Amino acid sequence: MNPLYYEEIVRQALSEDIGFQDLTTEAIISETHCSVAEITAKAEGILAGLDIAKRAFMLLDEQMSFQAKVHDGERVFPGQVVAVIKGRTRALLGGERVALNLLQRLSGIATETNQAVECIKNFDCHIIDTRKTMPGLRGLDKYAVKMGGGYNHRFGLFDAILIKDNHIAAAGGITEAVNLVREKVGHMVKVEVETETLDQVDEALRTPVDIIMLDNMSTELMKQAVQCIDKKVLTEASGGITLDSLVQVASTGVDLISLGWLTHSVKALDLSLNIVGEKRDV
Amino acid sequence: MNPLYYEEIVRQALSEDIGFQDLTTEAIISETHCSVAEITAKAEGILAGLDIAKRAFMLLDEQMSFQAKVHDGERVFPGQVVAVIKGRTRALLGGERVALNLLQRLSGIATETNQAVECIKNFDCHIIDTRKTMPGLRGLDKYAVKMGGGYNHRFGLFDAILIKDNHIAAAGGITEAVNLVREKVGHMVKVEVETETLDQVDEALRTPVDIIMLDNMSTELMKQAVQCIDKKVLTEASGGITLDSLVQVASTGVDLISLGWLTHSVKALDLSLNIVGEKRDV
Amino acid sequence: MNPLYYEEIVRQALSEDIGFQDLTTEAIISETHCSVAEITAKAEGILAGLDIAKRAFMLLDEQMSFQAKVHDGERVFPGQVVAVIKGRTRALLGGERVALNLLQRLSGIATETNQAVECIKNFDCHIIDTRKTMPGLRGLDKYAVKMGGGYNHRFGLFDAILIKDNHIAAAGGITEAVNLVREKVGHMVKVEVETETLDQVDEALRTPVDIIMLDNMSTELMKQAVQCIDKKVLTEASGGITLDSLVQVASTGVDLISLGWLTHSVKALDLSLNIVGEKRDV
Amino acid sequence: MNPLYYEEIVRQALSEDIGFQDLTTEAIISETHCSVAEITAKAEGILAGLDIAKRAFMLLDEQMSFQAKVHDGERVFPGQVVAVIKGRTRALLGGERVALNLLQRLSGIATETNQAVECIKNFDCHIIDTRKTMPGLRGLDKYAVKMGGGYNHRFGLFDAILIKDNHIAAAGGITEAVNLVREKVGHMVKVEVETETLDQVDEALRTPVDIIMLDNMSTELMKQAVQCIDKKVLTEASGGITLDSLVQVASTGVDLISLGWLTHSVKALDLSLNIVGEKRDV
Amino acid sequence: MNPLYYEEIVRQALSEDIGFQDLTTEAIISETHCSVAEITAKAEGILAGLDIAKRAFMLLDEQMSFQAKVHDGERVFPGQVVAVIKGRTRALLGGERVALNLLQRLSGIATETNQAVECIKNFDCHIIDTRKTMPGLRGLDKYAVKMGGGYNHRFGLFDAILIKDNHIAAAGGITEAVNLVREKVGHMVKVEVETETLDQVDEALRTPVDIIMLDNMSTELMKQAVQCIDKKVLTEASGGITLDSLVQVASTGVDLISLGWLTHSVKALDLSLNIVGEKRDV
Amino acid sequence: MNPLYYEEIVRQALSEDIGFQDLTTEAIISETHCSVAEITAKAEGILAGLDIAKRAFMLLDEQMSFQAKVHDGERVFPGQVVAVIKGRTRALLGGERVALNLLQRLSGIATETNQAVECIKNFDCHIIDTRKTMPGLRGLDKYAVKMGGGYNHRFGLFDAILIKDNHIAAAGGITEAVNLVREKVGHMVKVEVETETLDQVDEALRTPVDIIMLDNMSTELMKQAVQCIDKKVLTEASGGITLDSLVQVASTGVDLISLGWLTHSVKALDLSLNIVGEKRDV
Repeated sequence: MNPLYYEEIVRQALSEDIGFQDLTTEAIISETHCSVAEITAKAEGILAGLDIAKRAFMLLDEQMSFQAKVHDGERVFPGQVVAVIKGRTRALLGGERVALNLLQRLSGIATETNQAVECIKNFDCHIIDTRKTMPGLRGLDKYAVKMGGGYNHRFGLFDAILIKDNHIAAAGGITEAVNLVREKVGHMVKVEVETETLDQVDEALRTPVDIIMLDNMSTELMKQAVQCIDKKVLTEASGGITLDSLVQVASTGVDLISLGWLTHSVKALDLSLNIVGEKRDV
Repeated sequence: MNPLYYEEIVRQALSEDIGFQDLTTEAIISETHCSVAEITAKAEGILAGLDIAKRAFMLLDEQMSFQAKVHDGERVFPGQVVAVIKGRTRALLGGERVALNLLQRLSGIATETNQAVECIKNFDCHIIDTRKTMPGLRGLDKYAVKMGGGYNHRFGLFDAILIKDNHIAAAGGITEAVNLVREKVGHMVKVEVETETLDQVDEALRTPVDIIMLDNMSTELMKQAVQCIDKKVLTEASGGITLDSLVQVASTGVDLISLGWLTHSVKALDLSLNIVGEKRDV
Repeated sequence: MNPLYYEEIVRQALSEDIGFQDLTTEAIISETHCSVAEITAKAEGILAGLDIAKRAFMLLDEQMSFQAKVHDGERVFPGQVVAVIKGRTRALLGGERVALNLLQRLSGIATETNQAVECIKNFDCHIIDTRKTMPGLRGLDKYAVKMGGGYNHRFGLFDAILIKDNHIAAAGGITEAVNLVREKVGHMVKVEVETETLDQVDEALRTPVDIIMLDNMSTELMKQAVQCIDKKVLTEASGGITLDSLVQVASTGVDLISLGWLTHSVKALDLSLNIVGEKRDV
Repeated sequence: MNPLYYEEIVRQALSEDIGFQDLTTEAIISETHCSVAEITAKAEGILAGLDIAKRAFMLLDEQMSFQAKVHDGERVFPGQVVAVIKGRTRALLGGERVALNLLQRLSGIATETNQAVECIKNFDCHIIDTRKTMPGLRGLDKYAVKMGGGYNHRFGLFDAILIKDNHIAAAGGITEAVNLVREKVGHMVKVEVETETLDQVDEALRTPVDIIMLDNMSTELMKQAVQCIDKKVLTEASGGITLDSLVQVASTGVDLISLGWLTHSVKALDLSLNIVGEKRDV
Repeated sequence: MNPLYYEEIVRQALSEDIGFQDLTTEAIISETHCSVAEITAKAEGILAGLDIAKRAFMLLDEQMSFQAKVHDGERVFPGQVVAVIKGRTRALLGGERVALNLLQRLSGIATETNQAVECIKNFDCHIIDTRKTMPGLRGLDKYAVKMGGGYNHRFGLFDAILIKDNHIAAAGGITEAVNLVREKVGHMVKVEVETETLDQVDEALRTPVDIIMLDNMSTELMKQAVQCIDKKVLTEASGGITLDSLVQVASTGVDLISLGWLTHSVKALDLSLNIVGEKRDV
Repeated sequence: MNPLYYEEIVRQALSEDIGFQDLTTEAIISETHCSVAEITAKAEGILAGLDIAKRAFMLLDEQMSFQAKVHDGERVFPGQVVAVIKGRTRALLGGERVALNLLQRLSGIATETNQAVECIKNFDCHIIDTRKTMPGLRGLDKYAVKMGGGYNHRFGLFDAILIKDNHIAAAGGITEAVNLVREKVGHMVKVEVETETLDQVDEALRTPVDIIMLDNMSTELMKQAVQCIDKKVLTEASGGITLDSLVQVASTGVDLISLGWLTHSVKALDLSLNIVGEKRDV
């Protein structure tokens, strides 16, 4: 990831949390007091965001040492030490909450993504994300999906075309919508169109689209759509898919399954930071 | 809420999502095309964030009309129309995702908070939040907790004192830590201290603290602590409390129960935006 | 274009130019003095950037009236009035330079792009831009290319794949590079690979790329490459192509021709702003 | 130059180009892969902007080594190595485009300025710039003009007075305008007035101005104006002056010639970055 | 003043003061509650900053009405109403402190400046400011000096030359320093040199400087220096000048007297905001 | 203090002062020229802001050495060296004004605060600040108050409750206002109420407030109020208190005395920076 991208996010998060000073820590702990701390997993999951967590401490004190004990994308188990941090206690306690808030969210996303990925590992099918990410953190959310074994859908409205029902209605049909888009958009941009019926699939198939989204279709309908499309373009299943229905959806033969809840309803991975040693001076 | 506070968040979120342009919409929908859309609840819950959602559309076009049909803090039911939006379709589709991402998160927080609040409504006990909020969105997260009937703990490290185990260890004891804090911190700042044993509770009680946190105590131990404190200061239960254990914790007589998952593991409330009418020109 | 995108650029440009005040204008012209001004073309070309120019005046005074007399993408001729602006003279003179600097650059880009487009209008071939744009203004530069009849290549390093010689060398070959990319990158991202020889074209053709760039090839070599590729994927001619060589390159049958000079060496379109009427008060 | 000034510009340019990640490079090149690259001139010209180019790489990786082989303001020739860069390949490829875009523009400005300067080197006359610079990059553009041997006109509307036709009309005459300005503006601010006729020159000469601009005058008229002014104040020739007419204008005896095209219509100097050596690890 | 300039300052000040919400006001006063308030002078002085104060309220609610009863630069007396503000009480109380903090500082500067100006009104001598202004507010501070009848020295290090003792030492003398500066700096930049002895004055006089600063000279020495300079260039008295010594300094015949304390040691003008009427609803 | 907090302030202050370049210094002093400078006290006072002053130099050149000779909060005397700075002369002169402007203001605040603190050292009474601070610098101003031996009142409108006359009027009485606040505001927030009469004190005392402010009361009235309150809650004297009346106010037995002039009318502590040694190269 671009370090300038996440540094800015971490910097703003630290300002939000610390403000002009950490009242408690500055009153109690001297400027030169140093500690050793560990970030430990308290639940099983896939880790994501170590560089970002590290930056939270480094921004407060360039001399902090942050040693990751695992890599992003690796599975951790309860009790496992994830990182060891050494340096001034003030910077340690000042960066703790921001580091954990981000690391726990990203690891939560990676963990849930991975669960979905594992679920359908016997199918030739990818789990992908959506734009239902946390405002301001999209790049991080999407990074976490990748660490969990998923793939990214488009980043935003500016990097790919997704023709939805409202676009189709406004254009007067799928064909018209695709034509308008093909006329105006550059060659580096992929085009996906949303379909809800076999008729729409049929119409989409006769236009130069790269992906056909099968939106909120029943498994049965989806299967027919996939057969009809017959690998001519990619197919994406979307809408209301849960962990329970995942295998059924994958078994229709779709290439991609997009899951909004990977990023809009995240269960943070349980991690904690504990000071394991102290010394009075640098 | 301060409108300048959330306007900045919404502005950044729109930039993240739209970038320099919405490729699809600008290719297909004319600048003057107008629509009427509704935001509809697809699940039951407590709504929060309508002003913020409104701002997403207004920032893209000052002439949009956004009519909220409920107020923040009110309960909505599946199928209920939450807001009606009228104006240029480009602004409508450009603001949709940001508006929903924020509205769904905040309503999710309000809904889960309210569930916890309802759970213990027969006790004289408040549900409170923590600093385990989404980086960059803390003010919004804390607002949503209030809309759900909860109360806010401190905002950050700068507006109140919370003496934790590491502070106690560094100071050499609770008494020493409280003394250091009282010596340096102004009279408008409340002081809370974390305790894990009855001995610590006892020591804390002999210092001028405003709140004693009972951290990760068993219900039995907590009950003893509460009796020992005997309403002399406020008591806060914290650590590992779930929806299931909530009543049991409340029945110990604590004044406050803090729940990290209200904001670190949010289930978005299901809402959707649908265009219900179109017209070609302004 | 996203109005929030260009508003920010215009706002920074106004701050750069005006600083804390326009010394001359504030000393001489009263706050209520109003004028009518015209922006007039002094050369023939394609106009681009009227909304952006308008914003320069509106940011200084919400009550300004800015009436565009042509649309972006239209051809203007010497002496033609492009826009009429009415309002406080201080805002008019304060916004003048920023409005013109942007309008002239964007119109310059549109004009040169259009010249290239016209040049090859008898071929089924598109003129496209590059990342050789003005730092901070990429979205505007790319918008201007479109107004001139050109198309956009990728926006930046984040929205599409372009495998260059260094990537190929690091990966150990085109096949290896494409494989790495296909393994890690989502389905909404197009993949282009740079080739310099027929062998490379041949290798690229056996990988799942979307576009093959023919980099710095002679017209003869390019023609062979195009035949070899035989419309299986898109072809892009790149490197050292001038207005003079354009037809020759297009006649090789390539689908796309990318021209760095469209945006890195821009000749501003000659436009001027003249006050055509004054009145002392609002 | 103030390093904080250009660091901010480079930082924004990197964010614009890389966004949250360089998809291609991160997929293909490992984090520890290192390279040696050279920036080489492909055309003759005057170099400007090496510190700025260096910053593009340093912001992505503090450990990069950037060794300039020439100094800003020096002439380079085709094939000449301008700088050698060593370090992580990801940072190298990530900073490449921004570094080159800025370095090529600034060197282009320096080169064209120098050409103009050389043209009139036998006259006691300076080439100066205008406010027709790239929005957001004015400090860099003006720096480049100096590197080419030119001089800077005022930076913006806030640091010097330039009384133009509209000011004169609003004030009711040159005398009135100068009086208003002298009354209100501090002693550290120079005052220039625009004139188009000998009468205006005459009037301006009787006011306490520091510089008289001869705007869009014929060479003949300009010569008369210069004689009339007789070195009592500085004279600046302005408006429609080309490389071809430069000597003629200089021969009128003016002190300064301002050229908008130095910065509004820049031809980038042709430079390229090539990786000349690779190694797998740091 | 450039409205974009002070809007940014006011916006940041409001964020600093209100944060995510005004706890007291939002708890007690309903969103629709409206009031009428007056800003009243509680001391005599010169007012400055009304537009800036107005902006504090307008940024919180576009519908506020702010009616200034005096103009910037006018004298007010205790009890005099300075402005009447009507609108939502929340915005009124939210903007109050920022509006007053700025208005009181600027009026304080204007008042003290005016006192100095009045002091020497019988001399042909201007009171000027320095760079000893409040970080982040320089444009406002300098505006206030002008409202008090003073004049501005240079804005910063970038808009004029002031050769100080360290520069002279580094260059090897005044002549060398002025030569270096004249060689490199454009024609729109004034040059001032600091002198401490008559020898230095003498040397400076033989160089093309615009202003000679007489730094920390005794009145006697200053008088000699002024005679020696004999109006050939402007003279500025600087260093340790108090209200008491002002007349004596002015009587030496210097053109300008710069006073750091105008802006570094400001006594706020006593102003208060009072709600004079309330109504429950808009 | 949070280093990210003041770094941002210093960075903006440097940009304001230096802009794109220090014209004088860059023309005269070479990039490699180094100097040793001292910051010296020219008046007696309490120092505050050394870390902040240091940052001004470090931001311009990471290799500067800044050695503080005293600590914040310590008393300095005329002639005493406060800090020694070594490094490139350009960075030294570039950072000088910003460093001094901040250091002098903060030391001025600390000095005046300390004078007030010393004045009432025989009373059990604290000097506290207000929100009458410099917009954008509140955290620094409040830090300086602490360095002078004072204490901080609330930071802004968001971290504590202060119920003022307008709130009381809108709520319909003190009791109603406190009830509204207690109902809505979290347990970590202290509540203060403003009173002007004994009746109000009496009413306030029957509500759960933490602090009662005695606003603009005569010493006699204040004494009665303090007796009436009888240490049940904290008491704060506020309004129109001068250095002369301080002892009288303290002798009423109030716990806290708030003084707006500590921060709204600051007399800068006289400090100067002198170059004491130079060398041509690094």
